[in-house]
Formats: sequence, structure tokens, C-alpha cells
Amino acid sequence: MSFGYLCGMSLKSRLDAELRLQALLTSGVELISWDQEVCMPPGGVAGRAGLLGAMAGLLHQHLVETILPLLREAENSPDLDEDTRAQVKMLLEDAEMAEKVPADLVQKLSEAASMAQQAWAEARARSDFELFRPHLETLVALSREKAAALGYTDEPYEALLRLYERSVKPAEIEQLFSELKPFLTATVRLCQDQSPLGVDGPPLSMPADQQKALIRRIVSELGYDLSRGRIDESAHPFCTGINPDDVRITLRIYEDDLTMGLSSALHEMGHALYEQGLQREPLGWPSTRAASLSVHESQSRFWENHIGATLAYWTYLYEKVLPDYQVDWLSEYSPLTLTRRVNRIQPHLIRIQSDEVSYHLHIMLRFELERALINGDLTVRDLPAAWNDKIAEYLNITVPDDARGVLQDIHWSMGSFGYFPTYSLGSFLAAQLAEALTAAHPDWEERLTQGDGTLPLAWMRERIHRHGARYRTQELCEQATGAPLSAQAFIRYIQRKVAQLYEGLAIPA
Amino acid sequence: MSFGYLCGMSLKSRLDAELRLQALLTSGVELISWDQEVCMPPGGVAGRAGLLGAMAGLLHQHLVETILPLLREAENSPDLDEDTRAQVKMLLEDAEMAEKVPADLVQKLSEAASMAQQAWAEARARSDFELFRPHLETLVALSREKAAALGYTDEPYEALLRLYERSVKPAEIEQLFSELKPFLTATVRLCQDQSPLGVDGPPLSMPADQQKALIRRIVSELGYDLSRGRIDESAHPFCTGINPDDVRITLRIYEDDLTMGLSSALHEMGHALYEQGLQREPLGWPSTRAASLSVHESQSRFWENHIGATLAYWTYLYEKVLPDYQVDWLSEYSPLTLTRRVNRIQPHLIRIQSDEVSYHLHIMLRFELERALINGDLTVRDLPAAWNDKIAEYLNITVPDDARGVLQDIHWSMGSFGYFPTYSLGSFLAAQLAEALTAAHPDWEERLTQGDGTLPLAWMRERIHRHGARYRTQELCEQATGAPLSAQAFIRYIQRKVAQLYEGLAIPA
Repeated sequence: MSFGYLCGMSLKSRLDAELRLQALLTSGVELISWDQEVCMPPGGVAGRAGLLGAMAGLLHQHLVETILPLLREAENSPDLDEDTRAQVKMLLEDAEMAEKVPADLVQKLSEAASMAQQAWAEARARSDFELFRPHLETLVALSREKAAALGYTDEPYEALLRLYERSVKPAEIEQLFSELKPFLTATVRLCQDQSPLGVDGPPLSMPADQQKALIRRIVSELGYDLSRGRIDESAHPFCTGINPDDVRITLRIYEDDLTMGLSSALHEMGHALYEQGLQREPLGWPSTRAASLSVHESQSRFWENHIGATLAYWTYLYEKVLPDYQVDWLSEYSPLTLTRRVNRIQPHLIRIQSDEVSYHLHIMLRFELERALINGDLTVRDLPAAWNDKIAEYLNITVPDDARGVLQDIHWSMGSFGYFPTYSLGSFLAAQLAEALTAAHPDWEERLTQGDGTLPLAWMRERIHRHGARYRTQELCEQATGAPLSAQAFIRYIQRKVAQLYEGLAIPA
Repeated sequence: MSFGYLCGMSLKSRLDAELRLQALLTSGVELISWDQEVCMPPGGVAGRAGLLGAMAGLLHQHLVETILPLLREAENSPDLDEDTRAQVKMLLEDAEMAEKVPADLVQKLSEAASMAQQAWAEARARSDFELFRPHLETLVALSREKAAALGYTDEPYEALLRLYERSVKPAEIEQLFSELKPFLTATVRLCQDQSPLGVDGPPLSMPADQQKALIRRIVSELGYDLSRGRIDESAHPFCTGINPDDVRITLRIYEDDLTMGLSSALHEMGHALYEQGLQREPLGWPSTRAASLSVHESQSRFWENHIGATLAYWTYLYEKVLPDYQVDWLSEYSPLTLTRRVNRIQPHLIRIQSDEVSYHLHIMLRFELERALINGDLTVRDLPAAWNDKIAEYLNITVPDDARGVLQDIHWSMGSFGYFPTYSLGSFLAAQLAEALTAAHPDWEERLTQGDGTLPLAWMRERIHRHGARYRTQELCEQATGAPLSAQAFIRYIQRKVAQLYEGLAIPA
């Protein structure tokens, strides 16, 4: 697969054309996957699996058979400038990983994931893990095959984690988590029996239509260009960047609690701002791609938490936005009590409804379980019990059914093992970026009380978005914040937050 | 482009795999095009053009470079059975046409069409032909290049018409139309100053939400399986068959006239029933594809007119359906007066709002204009005036603006020249099929008064749908109706209709 009439062109022009084709087909896969979640009728699942499998097969073949030889030719070509050669080197690292996975395995995985996603949705709706189990078993088996094909030093899981984040190994994440765990559990323990002052008012309910209108308004105000995006609803909110001019998010609205849909909307909007801020040309080169999942998550977490959960922003919402909508509870709260309510630390069964502290305990258990599944230390059959045990251990709550337990997340149904840790890495990076932003613009939070989010967006565009994947996570972090990635800024951020929530309560770091 | 690991397989297995891949990618193009009309934000147009161009290029390359050689090998292979060889012959005829069009021209046309569609939508919204003109000029120029590449005997337009209907030449259509023209114009003249008895009641208005609910109900009752389909809205209603298990239609609702949205919904449903009735396997072979645009249109026209515009069906709607919705005008009408109103013959500026008689005068003028454009006898600059002149001549009405004139149809913006005549061929076939159905099941219309449309659907499934593209239009028509395709059944049908409308008025055949 490649266009024959390109043969007479220069190496650089051929690379440009083939990387463009790869990027365009990838954008097609993004769109087709978006449709599967948002629009596709239930009967379409089998045909869709075939289509996505065929597209995945073509992309793989094109990368390995057409792009990889060009990259190898370009790697040491004196005709290319230094920056181009550096980007070629990055592309080569990824393409060589892809080369190791046979085309038929790629296709099998894509088809299995497509079927599994539908089965997962049904299993979750009925809270019946058995409906999903055989699909997950297939995905685990195929993923173990994939890990073996990719190769690893210490454990199979390492090979899959590298697909999502190249710069860390499972043992390093284990180390990071084991250092953080005492802080997280101490914080949860300190906070779980206390109710922050003033939060126990009426539920923050709002009719779904009103919520959707409010969300459209505030995401537009914060810089999400809806003439280059759209908002729909889905069971599990997500963001799809087809290209910088077509970036879509989905919502899940809870009529009895405005803040849940709102915070997930700001989360997805953070992803969308990143995608809309990527450069358009030269299409397919690292400079036009997102850096990594961790960096992507730093953007979503930044807007969800460092904007959307601040007293500054809730002051704006309280004074300028909420009065325009149907809320009879506004006078029962103040900006501070609403902020406290939004930030309340209270372990929850559901990851995406969790507070920022227990959230990372959720990630930790998923990391441990998926690592055990892929390394062959846990069977899919034993997964629900293992899940429930860890929830009890880390969060001290009982899982009532699989829908609110092991079936709550879409990721494993997509064959995405190794993805979850990037959520924590992203949160740590978000906190570090927020500190750097404050150092550069000490007044940004003050301006947020007027709803003005232009400073943070301009700063992220400059420090993160415009570079695309020109640098890997660690290098980008150092460039943007002046320090290597760590959890220290996150810990300071949580300490400040707890002090605001509980008026002076201090947690040992 | 083809999967390397297929090389060791038999010729038949390789053909199976490559035709399947081609069909899957084609289904991707269908979906991506559907999204462009229904979901895509306005900013996405440039990126979408690139994506569709890349997909078109890949499909063309795969057909010409991979499938065509296999077909040539298979054409005379003694290893294949007779039926397979017959299907190979049909595929070969199409692939050899595709071979004649260079890949870069295919891609240019696809990209130009994608841009032109967006420009057309804006031009139509503002009624400003100038916004669309340069895009149409590009499309005409590229289409003339395409016609030259395809080759023809008598005129360039012939080459493009063959892409939509292989069995007729422009001169034959001209002949057919010139025979029909006196009947059509005589009928329009006889009817245009008369108002059928009882039709001048209040407007058949219904709130949009109610109309959508009513349409969902009746299309489901008539056999459109919504678990394998979906209904949206768009400026120009259409049907997209991604595969038999994902067949989507769009509506355009007019709050002041229920019958307009309803009849176009039944039209698109007719297309959808055909797509849902196609066989799933062996994917990519003619037996799983729709026969032709003319046959497709016979299905939409059959459900729109021979079901949806009959006294039988309006008796059902009047008695069993409409009482469940908010209509204050029901008592002002009877089933007969509603039927007369729906079928009123009254020339209209807009093709898709036209009655069944003047509709074909609309097609005739488009056929004449697009033939002149492609043959080089008319410039795009002169097109609006030529359009307006013909509307005045054939329908005796004045075009007030381009939105209701030359900009009303999407087809040319898609680069579809040669498509329009298939609408008339389809209508003639629909009337011929309806006569054959009546001969087989004289009671089908009687059963329709109870809303029972199972007989027509089962008959179409048996006579038309299950054969796919196993036979070309003419052969399928003869098999299904026992006679070659002609306009005679259509003329008889219109004569009966006029008699019902105007109580005994007779039109010379």
C-alpha cells in the first residue's frame, strides 16, 4: 500500500506523503470508533469489527512495509536536516515496535476488541461479568501474545506499558505508587469520617437540558472551539481528536448532581483543547501528534481540577453563571462551600466519580490487577473477586455488583492494558504544570474569578501543545516546568486542598 | 495493498479476501460520508476532504492493482464454478472501467467533491450560486477528464451515465423522455388549474417531535429494523447502507406539512429496506451488493408512492395512526381527501416536493443540463439562467432565487453527473413491480388498509433484494416482472391516479 506515482519523488517527499496517508487513515479509525460509541445501532457490531480490523491491518501494513523502510533509509541520510532526522528517530522507535507484532495478530486484536466493547456495554448494563468474561479472556490471551512478540526485559506487562508511555517501567510505577500510598491512605483516613463545613446542603440537581446548555457555554468560554468540535452523550465520557479541526467530546449527565457531569466535561475539554491546539502541518510527523497519554492526561486533569475545582472558578460560576440556570439551591451555598463540596474527599466505588485522592488508589489497584493478568499471575475468572478484595483493602468499601466494580471501565474491553498508570502520571504532571504556571503568571487564578481562562490556555499552547510529540513526556516536562516529573507538586497541591477543605487540617507528606 | 499472508491461498480464497477488504473499506467510506452530512462540525471540512480522498485513492489502487489481476486470472479459470465465473465477469467489467481512471484523478475528484459539498450547503443557505460556481467548474472539468479517460462512442456524458446505469445510453434516455414528455405535459396542463375535491382544508401541520415519533413508528411497522439502523435529520434526506446491519436514513421535517417529511421518510425507508434485505455473505461479491441505482430507486419509489401515497395506506393512517398524535385537522378530512391532497398534481419549484408527474419533468431538465455541461455545450456560468428557462418552459413557473433553483440538489456538488436519469428509470420500474405484485397477490392493497405491509416486503425480498447485483437492471426487471423495463406501467399508474384524484378525468396515453 502506497501510491505508485510517488516513486520518482525525493525521500523527504515520499516520507511526507506516506506519513500523511497514515495520519489520514488513523483519523478515519478515530472517527469510525467515535461512531461506534455514539451513533452505531446495536446490530452494526459485527460489521464494525470487520471494518476496524481491516483498517488496523492496513495501517499496520503501511507502517511496517512502506514507512519503516523509508525511515531506515532516512535515519542516516545526509540530505535531511537535524530536526527531521531527530523526528525520524522517534518514528523509527515506534515503527520498529509495530514491526514486531504480526499483521494477523493486530487484526485479531482489533476485531476482538470491537466485539468485546459491545459485550462489555451489555454486561455492564446487566451487571453480569459472565457476558464479558470470554471476550476479556480472548483479549488477555492475545495481549500476552502481543507482549511476547514485542519483547521485554523483566515481565510481559512492560511491553504493553511501553506502548502508552515509553519513559517508565512497571517497577518504577510500582515504586512511585508505593511511596505515594502512605500519603494517599493517610489522607483518605483523615478525611473520610469528616464532613467539610457547609457542604451538607441540598443536592446540586439540574435538569439535563440545562446542564448541557451550561456546559456548552463554559467550555466555549474556556476556549473549546465548537465550530471545530461537537458534544454528545455516551456511557463513558471520552474525547476523540479526528484532526485539530474536528475534536469531539462526550458527556454523561447526572440530573441529581451537576458537578459530576461538569467535572467530566472539563476533563474531556482539557483533552480537546490539546487536540485543537496541535499543529496541522506537516501532517503525520511527530510535531503534529499528541506527545503521550500521560501528557494528554495532564491537560484533562489540569482543566478538570486546577481550573474546574478551584475556589476561583466556583466564585465565577456562583456569581456569573449559575444564576442564569434553574437552580433553587444556590442560596444554600457560597462559593467556598460549593468548592468544598466539589472537592470532598470521600472514597467512591466508581473511579470517575472519585475524589482526587482516592482516585489514585483506584489506579493503583487497576495497575496491580492488569499487571497480574498480563504476567499470568491472575486469571480472568478470578478477576472480579480480586477486584472486590482490593477495593475493600484500599478504600474500605464493599462492591455491591460488578457493574459498579470490575465492569465500570471501558479500557480493558478495548484491549488497553498498560493505559491506566498514565492517568496518575498525568495528574502528577498537571500539578507540576500548575505550579510552573503560577510562577510565570501569579495572577492567573485571580483572573479566573472573572471566568478568564485565557492565561492558562495560552501558556499550555506555548509550553505543551505546539510541540506535539516532538519531545517525549519526561523531556517535555523538564522543558515546561524546569524539573523532572515527580509526585511532589501533586502532594503539595493535595495538602493545600485539604487545608482549604478542612480549615487547617494537615497531612504528613 | 493486500495482505501478504494470503499469497499461499487458492485463487478463490484470495479473491474472497480482497473483495471482502474492498467491501469493508467501502463501508468505511459510506460511514465517513454519512458523518460528514450529519455530525461533522463545519471546521472539519478540509481534513475530511483529505480523508475521503485518501480512502478513494486506496480503494481505487486496491481494485486496479490487486483485485483486477485476480479477476483476470479467474475469468477463465477451470477451478471456479459457472456462477462464480459469471460474477467474476461482472466484477471485471466494473474494475476495467476503474482501471481507465488514473488514481490521482480519482483522488482529485474525491477531494474536490468533499470541498464542493460544503460550499454547496453554504451557497444554498445564502442562495448565492457564485459561492458554489468555482467548485462546480472544477467538478465539471474533472468529470470531463474522467469521461475522456473512460472512453465513449457518441458523447462524453455516455461514459459517466454508464457508471450509474450500464444498460442504457443517453440517446435511449432522450428517446424515452421525448415519448413520455407529451403525456407528462398534457397531464400537468389538465391538472394544474384544477383542485381535486375536498383537498382545500387546513394545513397538515404537526410539531416536529410528533412527526419524528410518528415516522419512527410507521417505518418500524413497515419492516425497517431500527436495531440495525438509525434516523437523523439533514438538509437533503438520504439513506446510507454501511452494511445490512447498519442502514441509516435522514429526514427533513416540515412542521407545516406532515406529508412532505413523511413521504421522503418512506422514500428513504424504501432504500433502507433494500439495503437491510441484502445478503451478508460472501461479502464483496455482486450477490451481496445492490443491483444498480435504478433498482435502488425502484424500491424507494415503491414505498414512497405505491405504498405511502395510496388510499389504502391513508385509510390506515387516518383510522389507526393519526388519532394518536396532535392533529386538530383530522376531522376536516377523510382518507380519500387526504389521499387526494397527498397526490395533488401541482408543479413545484423543488424536485423533491414535486408531484409524481412533474417530478419527471424535473429529471428531464437536469438530464438535459448535465448532459450539456459534460458534453461541453453549456458553461457553469450559464447554468442558472438555463435552469430558470427550462423550469419556465416545462412547468410554467418562475424561479425566484437559486436556492429554490439550480442549488436545490446535492448531486452535482458530489460530482455525480449521470445520476439523475436513474430516478426516472427507478420510478418506471417501481410501477412495473407494483403491477407484478398485484398479479401475484391481488389482496396486498386491501391488507394495507390495516397497515399490513408484509406481503410487498416479502415479495421484494424474494424478487429483488436477495439477488443483490447478481443480475443487471434489465435482466432483474424481466425476471421479477416478466417484461422488459418500459414506462407503460408508470403511465397506467398515473392514469389510474388521476382518475382517483379528479373523479374520472382521463388523460390521453
